[in-house]
Amino acid sequence: MAQQLVDQRDMEFVIWEQFDNEEFLKSEQFAAFNRKTCDMILKEARKIAINEMLPTMAESEDVGLEFKDGVVKVPECMKPVFELMKEGDWGNLMIPEEMGGQGAPDFISSAVAEYFMAANWPLNAYLSMGNGTAAMIAMYGTEEQKKTYVKKLVSAEWGGTMLLTESSAGSDVGALETTAVKNDDGTYSLSGNKIFITNGEHDLCDNIIHPVLARIEGAPVGTKGISIFIVPKFFVNDDGSLGDRNDIWCTGIEHKHGIKASATCSMAMGAKGTCIGYLLGNENEGMKIMFNMMNGARMHTGQQALAYASAAYLMAVNYARERIQMRELGQPHDAPSVAIINHPDVRRNLLWMKSYVSGLRSFYQYMDYQKEMSHLGETEEIKKLANSMYELLTPIIKSYLANKGYDVCVQAVQVYAGAGYTKDYLVEQYMRDCKITSIYEGTCGIQAMDLLGRKMGMEGGKVFMAFLGEIMKIVNAAKEVEATKDLAERVEGMVNKLGEVAGHLGKNAMSLNYKIAFAHSLPYLDVMGDTIMAWMLLWRAMVASQKLEDNPKKKDVAFYDGQVKTAEFFIRTIVPTSIGRMSTIIDFCPAAIDISDEGFGGL
Amino acid sequence: MAQQLVDQRDMEFVIWEQFDNEEFLKSEQFAAFNRKTCDMILKEARKIAINEMLPTMAESEDVGLEFKDGVVKVPECMKPVFELMKEGDWGNLMIPEEMGGQGAPDFISSAVAEYFMAANWPLNAYLSMGNGTAAMIAMYGTEEQKKTYVKKLVSAEWGGTMLLTESSAGSDVGALETTAVKNDDGTYSLSGNKIFITNGEHDLCDNIIHPVLARIEGAPVGTKGISIFIVPKFFVNDDGSLGDRNDIWCTGIEHKHGIKASATCSMAMGAKGTCIGYLLGNENEGMKIMFNMMNGARMHTGQQALAYASAAYLMAVNYARERIQMRELGQPHDAPSVAIINHPDVRRNLLWMKSYVSGLRSFYQYMDYQKEMSHLGETEEIKKLANSMYELLTPIIKSYLANKGYDVCVQAVQVYAGAGYTKDYLVEQYMRDCKITSIYEGTCGIQAMDLLGRKMGMEGGKVFMAFLGEIMKIVNAAKEVEATKDLAERVEGMVNKLGEVAGHLGKNAMSLNYKIAFAHSLPYLDVMGDTIMAWMLLWRAMVASQKLEDNPKKKDVAFYDGQVKTAEFFIRTIVPTSIGRMSTIIDFCPAAIDISDEGFGGL
Repeated sequence: MAQQLVDQRDMEFVIWEQFDNEEFLKSEQFAAFNRKTCDMILKEARKIAINEMLPTMAESEDVGLEFKDGVVKVPECMKPVFELMKEGDWGNLMIPEEMGGQGAPDFISSAVAEYFMAANWPLNAYLSMGNGTAAMIAMYGTEEQKKTYVKKLVSAEWGGTMLLTESSAGSDVGALETTAVKNDDGTYSLSGNKIFITNGEHDLCDNIIHPVLARIEGAPVGTKGISIFIVPKFFVNDDGSLGDRNDIWCTGIEHKHGIKASATCSMAMGAKGTCIGYLLGNENEGMKIMFNMMNGARMHTGQQALAYASAAYLMAVNYARERIQMRELGQPHDAPSVAIINHPDVRRNLLWMKSYVSGLRSFYQYMDYQKEMSHLGETEEIKKLANSMYELLTPIIKSYLANKGYDVCVQAVQVYAGAGYTKDYLVEQYMRDCKITSIYEGTCGIQAMDLLGRKMGMEGGKVFMAFLGEIMKIVNAAKEVEATKDLAERVEGMVNKLGEVAGHLGKNAMSLNYKIAFAHSLPYLDVMGDTIMAWMLLWRAMVASQKLEDNPKKKDVAFYDGQVKTAEFFIRTIVPTSIGRMSTIIDFCPAAIDISDEGFGGL
Repeated sequence: MAQQLVDQRDMEFVIWEQFDNEEFLKSEQFAAFNRKTCDMILKEARKIAINEMLPTMAESEDVGLEFKDGVVKVPECMKPVFELMKEGDWGNLMIPEEMGGQGAPDFISSAVAEYFMAANWPLNAYLSMGNGTAAMIAMYGTEEQKKTYVKKLVSAEWGGTMLLTESSAGSDVGALETTAVKNDDGTYSLSGNKIFITNGEHDLCDNIIHPVLARIEGAPVGTKGISIFIVPKFFVNDDGSLGDRNDIWCTGIEHKHGIKASATCSMAMGAKGTCIGYLLGNENEGMKIMFNMMNGARMHTGQQALAYASAAYLMAVNYARERIQMRELGQPHDAPSVAIINHPDVRRNLLWMKSYVSGLRSFYQYMDYQKEMSHLGETEEIKKLANSMYELLTPIIKSYLANKGYDVCVQAVQVYAGAGYTKDYLVEQYMRDCKITSIYEGTCGIQAMDLLGRKMGMEGGKVFMAFLGEIMKIVNAAKEVEATKDLAERVEGMVNKLGEVAGHLGKNAMSLNYKIAFAHSLPYLDVMGDTIMAWMLLWRAMVASQKLEDNPKKKDVAFYDGQVKTAEFFIRTIVPTSIGRMSTIIDFCPAAIDISDEGFGGL
């Protein structure tokens, strides 16, 4: 039967065969989990995603949100599913038990999230966004703050947000104008307006806890003078019950291209009376505290795109198996029409999509693996390397997954052709929903600046060199396997070229040519992403080739052989294109910097 | 002041400086036109587009269409503008005078259409779609048919359509099931259902004339047995007045991703009573007659994408000039924030967009130039070459413009970041509207099959060789200009590589490897398109460099220098990437054909 949302066999392959996650399950921390329980969790999650969440996806988008007098009502169809998932604690799998979560390892929590995000992303976001707020409070809050907020947020009884953006402070957080004045009782009175606040107001939770970035009167300008405050929608009484309404109100919601069931709110603080906030951590520590959440948010945004791409690909491939149109190429005029999966250009497109979905999923799980390893690694050195790798690759997981995930959704629409342009199939919605991922939590341009400006130079470039070394481990291993030898050699060429490009760009980024270097930062991020894809697909092909030698079941033969073909396709058709692009970075064209502003035309 | 829709200076450059359209104006056929009248027409068109059409674009999309009991009502705001444009004969500029049009040369009609399409595409389509129907009737109709329909269609008093697609006959026209039975009076009774019929029903015109593809009882299967019929919504009395309603009804409209003000109709014929059609041309000539319209439809679809890209780019570049965010790269922390056009990655993105908008516009006007030359060329040989060039490049103008135009719209949204994801700016609508262009009038995959399967082999490959020769003329001329010498040499390398790829692919397309060859047909179309871009941009840069030597006005210096920088950017950053892609076509990876259907997963 046609699968939906996530290819089950593929997910199992990644978490159990490509990555040795079973090793993590031996640790004391995960005593409650073994492979069987993990498989069961995944099975249940798939059921909920397909049977409960997915049926609400189109309707919740179609009905949309109702905004009136500061109140946002979500579509009714979301409510029972939200309750079901809240009761089942499906929103806090990866949260430590001491915070009220399930304490599951990242890899299984991520696998589940891929299903949930693909089934109804806004619903999943309402359910799980409190975790980020809870994590901040757990890390920086006072004992009382922890006691008051953490478990309620983790259980999704209360919702969480992040009030960062203002109309003149988006990418440029330091420009924010929201102010805080200290009161005699140690609280602060906040005043200001925020925009683009995801889930800033809705009626799924009894209370919403807003972390708010603001500048305390007299604090330094720029990012150095930013503090972070906990601003509850309803004050919380000492006994945990809800008290008065705080003066933080939703003043409007955006009318968006996609994710229409997710409330994107404008928020006003202190406009009607007094908006009280509680300092989290110390004064002027706002950016540091927020950045702790930022890596996770960027990971999740990348995963959001992956989830859409995964679901859109499965829809497209199964539609291509069913849609009958035109005779087979090369057959006589009166030959019968066939399913379009038989047409060469459709096959090329599907394999192109599959190569990205596969590579992106492996890349995402690799990141989870690094994150887990940064806690559970045997030595401090291993832990440190894993953490560095995670840091280095975070801008890529955000930007590259967003862009490639979107491209996959667009091509899924193309497979449906005219039907794909209508709202009759979910691929249309996946394409729209996915577009946000290249924008929020830092645009692709911001990620590219982070990569070139901060991450490439980590530890004097040693982290990047270690990254190349990690790829070469797989390349060298794949060279020893007959079926992947040739592919491994091709990837080796790519890795060498990437090293050359990185050296060239890094040097220039610190020279008088820095502007030209940064004009090549996003292309650089992209070719680094391409290299990661080649690495991940080669890795998959190598594992699959080894499994093929063990006489697997017939269905597994097709699966493993598909891995080898997918790697071959990517490495022979995308890699040389990417290498061509790498050479343009070395060529270092200055035109984008040299052209005068008037030269862009339009004046 | 910020320009909208189309860069005026750029359009003038293309039609008067890059291409010598003034030469055409010397012909007797265009005696009523000179450069001054053409400039005036363009000026008036721009005014109407910006002042009348554009203000209705968002509203007509937002209000949308009303469908009830077989009747489609268009948004009220479109009606006065439609009347104004109809009265001004703005829909039939390029139609010959004897058909009731203005007899303007193609280049000026196309320049006008770019404005109109960018300002409100559905409105322009309602206004001008009758031209295609009229052209078919003018070419194949009886004298009576011509007298009855042509002028009413050209004047937009009546609307026109094309009833081709059925639910099981999209790309595969030969599979259609609509039938026609000959009546004693020579008319035919039609019976069947069509889908995806643009403007199949609406209330802007008194009558709608439907050309319908159907199979006469007993005709051969496949495309050979298809005839084409004129099916008026209302019968026309001998005196030209409208008579009874024909039994052709709209049974529903599609809910689409974009172009929401354009009615995409399901049409039923003969379901309630008798649907009468009049044979156009001879029996079983339907495909031939329709294909005469198809090249024009494919051109217009490419232009639709160009128009969106043009408008979206102008919005983005002017937004980038106004939007203040972050200090300049490399400046101290307390430096003032600047307009985002100063940021290297934004500049790169804008120049990337500009290079495509410029190249695509030149390519489009090149096609118009060939079309005109195929009539007005001095010798039969010149005429024939021009016509062949037009035929060869039609699949590229359709597919490449659709895809690159869309990419430009997507990047325009990226420049707006969060704001671009909302409906506050038209870029969001341009992105959605543009997606249709890669789908209708033959998907990109269909265009690629046409290119590789039919066009590359035209006259034993001589047309393609002539195409390479045309590029080399510009390359050789550009080598003689100091400022473009290096760029010309780079393009020469690309042309040589394209020739090699074409030879390789063409040979394989006729071998047992034909399926693998066709799995590379769309990448091939794309690299051929990239080569055309490089050619057009080099051409622009060469012309601009020569103008720069003549001490132009200050504003023109920025414009011409912008041309050189744009060519440099494209040729140094896109061309090598494309050459890398060309090498993958020669490498000829068979994975997309070799992989088993099960190997795609999802089962």
